[in-house]
Amino acid sequence: MMFEMVKSNGIAHKSYFLGSNGIAAVIDPRRDCDIYIDIAERNDMKIEYIFETHRNEDFTIGSIELREIVGADIFHGAGIDFDYGNSVNEGDKFQIGSLVLEIIETPGHTDESISITVKDRDVSDDVYMILTGDSLFAGETGRCDLYGEENKRKMSEALYNSIFKKILPLGDNVIICPAHGSGSICGAEIREQELTTIGYEKKTNKILKYDKKGFVNAKIKEKLYKPPYFQKMEKNNLEGPDLICKLPYLKPLSMHEVKELMAREAQVIDVRDPTAFSGGHIPNTLNIWNDGLPAYAGWFLNYEQPVIIIDDDNSRIDEIKRYLTRLGYDNIYGYLSGGFKVWFEGSGDFESVQTWSVHDLLPNMGKKSLFLLDVRKENDWIKEHIDGSHNVYVGLLKDNLDKIPQDKHVVVSCDTGYKASIGASILQMNGYKNVTNVLGSMAAWKKAGYPVAMGNLNNIS
Amino acid sequence: MMFEMVKSNGIAHKSYFLGSNGIAAVIDPRRDCDIYIDIAERNDMKIEYIFETHRNEDFTIGSIELREIVGADIFHGAGIDFDYGNSVNEGDKFQIGSLVLEIIETPGHTDESISITVKDRDVSDDVYMILTGDSLFAGETGRCDLYGEENKRKMSEALYNSIFKKILPLGDNVIICPAHGSGSICGAEIREQELTTIGYEKKTNKILKYDKKGFVNAKIKEKLYKPPYFQKMEKNNLEGPDLICKLPYLKPLSMHEVKELMAREAQVIDVRDPTAFSGGHIPNTLNIWNDGLPAYAGWFLNYEQPVIIIDDDNSRIDEIKRYLTRLGYDNIYGYLSGGFKVWFEGSGDFESVQTWSVHDLLPNMGKKSLFLLDVRKENDWIKEHIDGSHNVYVGLLKDNLDKIPQDKHVVVSCDTGYKASIGASILQMNGYKNVTNVLGSMAAWKKAGYPVAMGNLNNIS
Amino acid sequence: MMFEMVKSNGIAHKSYFLGSNGIAAVIDPRRDCDIYIDIAERNDMKIEYIFETHRNEDFTIGSIELREIVGADIFHGAGIDFDYGNSVNEGDKFQIGSLVLEIIETPGHTDESISITVKDRDVSDDVYMILTGDSLFAGETGRCDLYGEENKRKMSEALYNSIFKKILPLGDNVIICPAHGSGSICGAEIREQELTTIGYEKKTNKILKYDKKGFVNAKIKEKLYKPPYFQKMEKNNLEGPDLICKLPYLKPLSMHEVKELMAREAQVIDVRDPTAFSGGHIPNTLNIWNDGLPAYAGWFLNYEQPVIIIDDDNSRIDEIKRYLTRLGYDNIYGYLSGGFKVWFEGSGDFESVQTWSVHDLLPNMGKKSLFLLDVRKENDWIKEHIDGSHNVYVGLLKDNLDKIPQDKHVVVSCDTGYKASIGASILQMNGYKNVTNVLGSMAAWKKAGYPVAMGNLNNIS
Amino acid sequence: MMFEMVKSNGIAHKSYFLGSNGIAAVIDPRRDCDIYIDIAERNDMKIEYIFETHRNEDFTIGSIELREIVGADIFHGAGIDFDYGNSVNEGDKFQIGSLVLEIIETPGHTDESISITVKDRDVSDDVYMILTGDSLFAGETGRCDLYGEENKRKMSEALYNSIFKKILPLGDNVIICPAHGSGSICGAEIREQELTTIGYEKKTNKILKYDKKGFVNAKIKEKLYKPPYFQKMEKNNLEGPDLICKLPYLKPLSMHEVKELMAREAQVIDVRDPTAFSGGHIPNTLNIWNDGLPAYAGWFLNYEQPVIIIDDDNSRIDEIKRYLTRLGYDNIYGYLSGGFKVWFEGSGDFESVQTWSVHDLLPNMGKKSLFLLDVRKENDWIKEHIDGSHNVYVGLLKDNLDKIPQDKHVVVSCDTGYKASIGASILQMNGYKNVTNVLGSMAAWKKAGYPVAMGNLNNIS
Repeated sequence: MMFEMVKSNGIAHKSYFLGSNGIAAVIDPRRDCDIYIDIAERNDMKIEYIFETHRNEDFTIGSIELREIVGADIFHGAGIDFDYGNSVNEGDKFQIGSLVLEIIETPGHTDESISITVKDRDVSDDVYMILTGDSLFAGETGRCDLYGEENKRKMSEALYNSIFKKILPLGDNVIICPAHGSGSICGAEIREQELTTIGYEKKTNKILKYDKKGFVNAKIKEKLYKPPYFQKMEKNNLEGPDLICKLPYLKPLSMHEVKELMAREAQVIDVRDPTAFSGGHIPNTLNIWNDGLPAYAGWFLNYEQPVIIIDDDNSRIDEIKRYLTRLGYDNIYGYLSGGFKVWFEGSGDFESVQTWSVHDLLPNMGKKSLFLLDVRKENDWIKEHIDGSHNVYVGLLKDNLDKIPQDKHVVVSCDTGYKASIGASILQMNGYKNVTNVLGSMAAWKKAGYPVAMGNLNNIS
Repeated sequence: MMFEMVKSNGIAHKSYFLGSNGIAAVIDPRRDCDIYIDIAERNDMKIEYIFETHRNEDFTIGSIELREIVGADIFHGAGIDFDYGNSVNEGDKFQIGSLVLEIIETPGHTDESISITVKDRDVSDDVYMILTGDSLFAGETGRCDLYGEENKRKMSEALYNSIFKKILPLGDNVIICPAHGSGSICGAEIREQELTTIGYEKKTNKILKYDKKGFVNAKIKEKLYKPPYFQKMEKNNLEGPDLICKLPYLKPLSMHEVKELMAREAQVIDVRDPTAFSGGHIPNTLNIWNDGLPAYAGWFLNYEQPVIIIDDDNSRIDEIKRYLTRLGYDNIYGYLSGGFKVWFEGSGDFESVQTWSVHDLLPNMGKKSLFLLDVRKENDWIKEHIDGSHNVYVGLLKDNLDKIPQDKHVVVSCDTGYKASIGASILQMNGYKNVTNVLGSMAAWKKAGYPVAMGNLNNIS
Repeated sequence: MMFEMVKSNGIAHKSYFLGSNGIAAVIDPRRDCDIYIDIAERNDMKIEYIFETHRNEDFTIGSIELREIVGADIFHGAGIDFDYGNSVNEGDKFQIGSLVLEIIETPGHTDESISITVKDRDVSDDVYMILTGDSLFAGETGRCDLYGEENKRKMSEALYNSIFKKILPLGDNVIICPAHGSGSICGAEIREQELTTIGYEKKTNKILKYDKKGFVNAKIKEKLYKPPYFQKMEKNNLEGPDLICKLPYLKPLSMHEVKELMAREAQVIDVRDPTAFSGGHIPNTLNIWNDGLPAYAGWFLNYEQPVIIIDDDNSRIDEIKRYLTRLGYDNIYGYLSGGFKVWFEGSGDFESVQTWSVHDLLPNMGKKSLFLLDVRKENDWIKEHIDGSHNVYVGLLKDNLDKIPQDKHVVVSCDTGYKASIGASILQMNGYKNVTNVLGSMAAWKKAGYPVAMGNLNNIS
Repeated sequence: MMFEMVKSNGIAHKSYFLGSNGIAAVIDPRRDCDIYIDIAERNDMKIEYIFETHRNEDFTIGSIELREIVGADIFHGAGIDFDYGNSVNEGDKFQIGSLVLEIIETPGHTDESISITVKDRDVSDDVYMILTGDSLFAGETGRCDLYGEENKRKMSEALYNSIFKKILPLGDNVIICPAHGSGSICGAEIREQELTTIGYEKKTNKILKYDKKGFVNAKIKEKLYKPPYFQKMEKNNLEGPDLICKLPYLKPLSMHEVKELMAREAQVIDVRDPTAFSGGHIPNTLNIWNDGLPAYAGWFLNYEQPVIIIDDDNSRIDEIKRYLTRLGYDNIYGYLSGGFKVWFEGSGDFESVQTWSVHDLLPNMGKKSLFLLDVRKENDWIKEHIDGSHNVYVGLLKDNLDKIPQDKHVVVSCDTGYKASIGASILQMNGYKNVTNVLGSMAAWKKAGYPVAMGNLNNIS
């Protein structure tokens, strides 16, 4: 058998390519699906099956795109009414060369969630591997809050049953292949490990140590952010998105064209690193560093107004387009040709952000004129933070500006200074004049041995 | 100023990128126009002008594709009625940074042909360079036969006037940038030199040594092949072709799908080298080696039935798609996934072609059972050939099979064995059973010191 | 934690990169070690540890090369006296960020073989993974014959103890990371699965179902080929090989230079596919297709005389150099510049090999003038073959030419026609005039539904 | 014939590849010579000749490296005593396929300078092209000051004779191929045009309009900077440099290792753009943006102490190594693995540089506390500058710090802000605390329509 995991960075999405004797299946393909065709070609295989473990909500699925090219059939759970593909039910089996894939309905994260067991008949009739979608992750279980507070108990109970009655009994040796890894917002605290087994999860996954009641209570108490773009993804993945090949070209834009588009409310993202953004940037632009796009763009960009990219040398435009296309952003319009330097060489106005090291921050803590804003997730802040810091999650910052004083020196920090730069740019876009980014942030603060506080109260709210 | 030539291999098409102070013009862009956008980006320039020296007939022009992306204006000669762009006339000037481009009407190859002079005002008011389109090449002049035999005299006279009265007087120092290089069929004997000057052409271009009468007579006597795809290119370039971005995906195909498509009259090209093709190939497929596609595909492929590619490992599919798209083939359907090896591993039937070295050929010359077929151009054959060989140009072979005896051992040769392999594949597709390719052909024959004949009669016709 | 497998094709060698909190270890690095530095860079890690699970015998290890660049320490088992690095013993522990790597001595394949367990303290104190070197593979166990027939029993007993007393008790959930995958000659029948677990092996690995006596008997009966280059690898890996960066440049060679070097006994490998080789090749050259080099070059090439490569367009020269350097071939001299076509265009003499499909073969079976030579491994032949075929393994063909009649039409087959082409080239190099390669071989034969025989006697010997 | 120019950016060095009928010559190869081997391979050619137009002083020549690989012969002028290769004299001819290369001795830039005329006998006996080395450029002539003030007259007279008596008489049509383009310091004001002809130079090159006396006087008055690394290049190119393949590996370094090396006086270059450098950088590091390395590294780096690179993601390390190797820097030691972010995440101290737009600068002009330092070449400053600015060329800044007040706010500008960032970093390394970089500098200042002054006195000296 042939097996390959394809990971999409930032959203930590994992899709899988499985094949045997020249036939292959892809599970949860991403929208820019050329990679599966390359894998198929390298392994002399024909993709004949596409499975979706559930209607994914954090990215736009590539099933239809892939089907368009290779002509495979699409299968997904029967729990909701997709506009495309075929429904499968408990116990349905698919023969792929020597492999047998069998459907297990595992609702809980969503109603139509399925898991898929894999046996290799050339080896034995034992289950070798299970694709768990968003039900069971390394060190975590899927979030149960997507259908609203009122359905959390019901979904959590369903998830408990799916995991404890269907998945765990398959045997300690079974390899688990979930749809997400560490960093995804589809589970609270997914571990970094790319691989795990049922036995290892039984030994180490904390939430699996509870009984049913404890499990359900823990899931109900779980608080996770839900970015606004989820809604669009759910729609895309229910109806089937547009084909990428029908999207318009990305346009190289002159400084003049960028100015005009900005006047007409284009959304401009500066994808450079925080250091470069701090050194100088076009006023009224949002900074999300390149590799932060998959995880953060969905908090800030809408799907209507044209999106424009600012970078240094535009060598990453294709990657950026992939990142945003995976999130369903088909409104990417173009990029500043020549990069930021054409802006300042063309006598464009620009702003900068002051940067501080943690050594600059330390002696200023306690000053009344200073407001230290920590834009990490609330959970992270509770675990450890700099005493005196105020927490507003970066994704929610724009809606909570009333908590940030306009007249103070706002010093922004996060884990390392990257998300802080998103925060700093949002503040500048909203009129804050005196903004500083702590490069290194908590990582450097702890490395320097400076004191760390804990707390279970967000001292802003 | 900034200047770059972009050459498209096989058809020896030359387009040009000219820029100054951030503004650029592209002359005769090819259809896969990403390269111009890359050049613009590398040089911090905005493409604002697109010029067409004439309605090109040997490739599909990329003006509309490029305009779609960069938003430039398109300009061409006034002699025919294009469905897009703007007409220019003698003396029209365009300011591009410090450059001044001036239109000179130079009919002869076609009615609407223009040349463009380039001055750099930062340097002087002298003409620096001239873009001559298909009027004047290195060592050659443009063909005058596109409007039919009946108009050859008129067109030749027009060309004489264009060259002698407008171009040559510009000064010996002026650099000439033609639209084609060696290997193009838009001129009989274009030299290999990428660069030339008016002075060097005056000294060395044989046809420029004639007076008007001699020039016209020489042009009238000129015999050039005109591949059938020219007609489609002329239509494309008059109306404006479809956008590439709207073309369907290329599909990886299984052996089974290829068989089915062949049953429904798909056009299958094997793009491997003659050696590999000789070792084994799918019956009823045409061999055109990869880099021979631009020059030879247009002789054999129609624009309706799906085109399927056979290669070894499909690593060149993107290049092949570019080659064929430049010729307006928007009917490329897919490729045999896994390459030829999946065919024979899948127990597909295959054929082979015997290969001979020139040392194998020599002792067999004179045998009655042998028919030596030379598929080079008639002109090349006249200059030098192997005594006893018969000449039919490869592009015309299919229409002249009556001249090739079915019952003999047909030994095919050309310059080096590549075009001979096209010929061999055509013969096999038409039922010839005993076909041999002379790898090395004339090149090896001469290297070996074997005797070469000359002649001005094609001994077949 | 961060985990990545690096697989070297052909020899199916698997090395591993493990890291946590910025520190990393590499296990069994290959000699062209840039890939580990790239992984480290992408993951912001510093390679500080290099482990060798044993003195590998099928490739040249890259420990010293990697140490030269990153300055890490090298560790290996204490069972033999390496000329470099440090010895480790049972129970030695290494802290790598949150990971704890612990040494388990697991002799059997070799005396100094070690396995390494991995725990992630950030997760738990349970064993997560074990690196098993050449002791336990997916579906197989390491070969025990490297110290000669006389030591097979002793080594097999040691391996039994290593696996049953040390590895298997670690728990069903533990992920197994062996040093080889399917296709390696370090284990008889390694499965294709890249991943496995202790529990899955207990359920499915046939040799693990025996008791000690049965296990040892099975291992003693095991017959595996040992290519001649193993001896050089063992020496390299004991003493430490030369640094790659000190090797001379690969030279582009003219046809004339190749001829001269061949006259002085250079070793010439034609790396093209069997189809191309069949269509034409330089006389007296060995055909090993590009991706077959890692597994087969070691059977045929010596380490003294210069090696010269023949290909089509030389686009794979860097890959070929890597393949051969991994096998310790530091005598790669150069390649025919321009590829095989310059040979035939330069009027060089060439030979061809007839190709047959299985449909061509079938009606000829039984002819007395035909000798069907199957060059697969003896074990494969015993399992299934074409009735009437004679088996000599391709690696041993040169030493068994007395078994192949010179005066018959020798038709060579294997699995698919690739190894058969090696065989055909060896025959031609040794004066056989009438040689045919069955493209597709057993794969196509079975696909076509033709009859398959079995047998436990090699009908040649 | 086949002709290709290979340009090395930054130093604007032009080397040439010329070939015909399978044989090729390279003129003035750069040290990383793989590009010529690629060109040869693409064109089926064998490099048999290497010519050096003179002992180049601005880069390390690659003749010996290329010879090592392809085995060609090296030729150079007889005027000095090279430690390698062969001398040529006036009138020596070399047949390269149909090409004839003929040596013309053209001293003036150096004694041993030669030019080479190219005829293509397949076309005619007329001179087609001339390789002029550093004697005649587009719009310029070679500098005559390398042998010191005392020899300027003699060298200028020699150059006059070389150009007027030997080169210009060859004919207006002849294409000129010089060894440098715009941006090189081997000529004062080389034009941007990549191509020129003798006729066009006669019409437009200002210094060619003088008579001999005027020419010599103009050359004597010419003032050009001579970076300190020229001395090393002259030595390298006389003796022949070390082979690149013998250089040690570049090492990925941890933050800790970088600190240790800095304590031992390593030379650290931050190759990021000025914007990023301004946002934050390691104290005591020199900023030269990546593409500025070829032109500026030679002013600042010595050849003894290890060189360390700081970048963002180290994706350009190979390019940087090429840039520095061309300048003979064989002491490149390594790079900060993970880039600048590991520094601040690791709680390293850092500095920033304030950035101003020209709109920030304007209202501050005239303030007494401000010192506007323009680091462009003196000639550029004389042509146009901001009134009130002080000029010290960036290459000479370190030796003229006494002219820059320590107690003022030093605002640095140049053309666009890139060289100003070099200047700002030098100031910071020397204890200046209050340093600002004007991003956009003169380019933006003029674009904004702000007033420009002229002057022929450097108001510092």
